Amino acid sequence: MISKAQIKEIRLLHLKKHRERYGCFVAEGDKTVCSFLESPWYVVERIYALPVWVEARSTILQLHPDVPVEIIDPDQLSQISRLHTPQQVLALIRLPVPLALPARLHELVLALDAIRDPGNLGTIIRIADWFGIRYICCSPDCADVFQPKVVQASMGSLAHVHIVEETLTTLFQQHPDIPVLAATLNGKPIQQFQWNRDQTRAAFLLIGNEAHGISPALLQMATTCITIPRLGQAESLNAAIATGILCAFLCLTETARPAPDKSAE
Amino acid sequence: MISKAQIKEIRLLHLKKHRERYGCFVAEGDKTVCSFLESPWYVVERIYALPVWVEARSTILQLHPDVPVEIIDPDQLSQISRLHTPQQVLALIRLPVPLALPARLHELVLALDAIRDPGNLGTIIRIADWFGIRYICCSPDCADVFQPKVVQASMGSLAHVHIVEETLTTLFQQHPDIPVLAATLNGKPIQQFQWNRDQTRAAFLLIGNEAHGISPALLQMATTCITIPRLGQAESLNAAIATGILCAFLCLTETARPAPDKSAE
Repeated sequence: MISKAQIKEIRLLHLKKHRERYGCFVAEGDKTVCSFLESPWYVVERIYALPVWVEARSTILQLHPDVPVEIIDPDQLSQISRLHTPQQVLALIRLPVPLALPARLHELVLALDAIRDPGNLGTIIRIADWFGIRYICCSPDCADVFQPKVVQASMGSLAHVHIVEETLTTLFQQHPDIPVLAATLNGKPIQQFQWNRDQTRAAFLLIGNEAHGISPALLQMATTCITIPRLGQAESLNAAIATGILCAFLCLTETARPAPDKSAE
Repeated sequence: MISKAQIKEIRLLHLKKHRERYGCFVAEGDKTVCSFLESPWYVVERIYALPVWVEARSTILQLHPDVPVEIIDPDQLSQISRLHTPQQVLALIRLPVPLALPARLHELVLALDAIRDPGNLGTIIRIADWFGIRYICCSPDCADVFQPKVVQASMGSLAHVHIVEETLTTLFQQHPDIPVLAATLNGKPIQQFQWNRDQTRAAFLLIGNEAHGISPALLQMATTCITIPRLGQAESLNAAIATGILCAFLCLTETARPAPDKSAE
C-alpha cells in the first residue's frame, strides 16, 4: 500500500531541494534497482513494486530482509513513476555522504566541466562503468547526478562509480602531480597520444560543456590537449560520444601497445 | 505570413505517412537549415523564419534566391515547431529520391540493424559525418531518418551523409566481396583488430538493435565479430556510443599505424 502523502513525497523528489530535504533519491526499473541493492555504497530505503517483480526478484530480496517492500498496483506505480512506461519497480535510495577523491590515485579519473544535459551525464557514468573507471569528478555546475533522468540514463552504473562534486580548479591544485588531459578540438590526435602509464598511472580526463567546451581557467591547467580528429564535416561530437571514444583509446590501447622502453629492447 | 492550413500541414509532417503524402520533411534551427541549404543533395522547399534570422543569414539566402522565405512571428513559429525552445527558423525539405549503394565501394559503410531510438539514429548520423563516412544503410525497421527527432539529433549531418534503406541480408548478398564487421559482445577486441585496408578498402560495420543486438540471420553473414572490451561492470554500452568508439578505431588507427607490408621492410 502507498498513501497519498507518500505519493506526493515521492513525486517531489525530482527536485534537488526536496531530495536534500528528505535525504533520498528515486531509482526506477529492475536493473537499476537491483544495482543499488547490490552496491555496498548505497542504502535502499524502500521499494515500491508490482507483485510480479517481487516474485521474480525473491532471491535478491531475501538477501536484503531489512529493505521494506511495498506492493502496489500499476495505477499507483504510474502515479509515482516519471517514466512514460513505468517498469514494475521504483526504489527510494538514501543520498550518499559527499565523497572526496583519495589523496593517492593510480588510475584514470573523469573530470566533467559543466555537463548540463542529464542524458549525457548518465551516459558518461555508464561509459565510465564499462571501462572500469571508478571516479568521476563533477564541477558544481554539472547536472545533479541524483536527478531522475541521470539515474535513468546511467542504467544502474551510478551504483558502481563514485561521484565527487568539486570545483575542478581546486581539484587539480590538490593533485599537482596528476596530468590533466583536456579534450579539445585542436590537440594531439588521440590515436597518436601515448599516455605513459608506467611513469604516471593516474590522469584526469577533462571533458567540457556541450556548447562552450572547457572553461578558459581550466584549459590553462591542462597538461596535454587531446583530440578526436575530424575526417568529415560535422561541427562537433556529442560530449558523451567524445568521452566514450577518448576513454576507449586511453583504457584499451595502452594495455595492447607495448610501452616505449619495452619496444626499444 | 503563414495560413492556418499551412500550420496544420506542417504539424502533420511529424508522421511518416504525411511526409510521404506531401513529399517533404521538417528541419529546425539555424545550423540544420543552413546545412540543407548548402547540401547539393537536398532541395529546400520553403523557409519559415523570424526577421532576425533572415537578417543574420542574408548572405546564404542570396545564394538561394529560388527558396521562398516566409517571415513569421515567434507565436507562429511556436505553433509549427516541435522543439521546447523554437530556434528562429524552420524549413520544409523535399524528401530525397531513395538511394542505392554504389556497386563498387572502397570505404567503410555503416549498416544499422533495427536502431529504433531516434536520438541514437541521429547521433549515429552525426558520428558518421565526423569520421567522413558517406553511406549509412538502415534496415527497414530502423527509425525513419526524416522524423523530427532524428533530423534534430543529427545536428545538420543528415545533409552530408547518404542514407540507404535496404534489407541488410539483401545488401550483404549484393556485395559478397565486402567484409561484414559485426559489433558484438564476444568478438575480437577492437584495439587488436587489424582491418586490412590495403587488401580490401571497403567494409560494412554492422550495429545491432539497442535491446536485442544483431539479429541471428545477419550475425551468420558476419565476416568478423569485433568487440569493445569491458573492463568494468556495466552490462552494455549505448548503441551510439559503441558506434562512435568502433568508428574511431576503424577510421583513425589504420591511418596512424603503418601497414603490415611497410613495417616489414
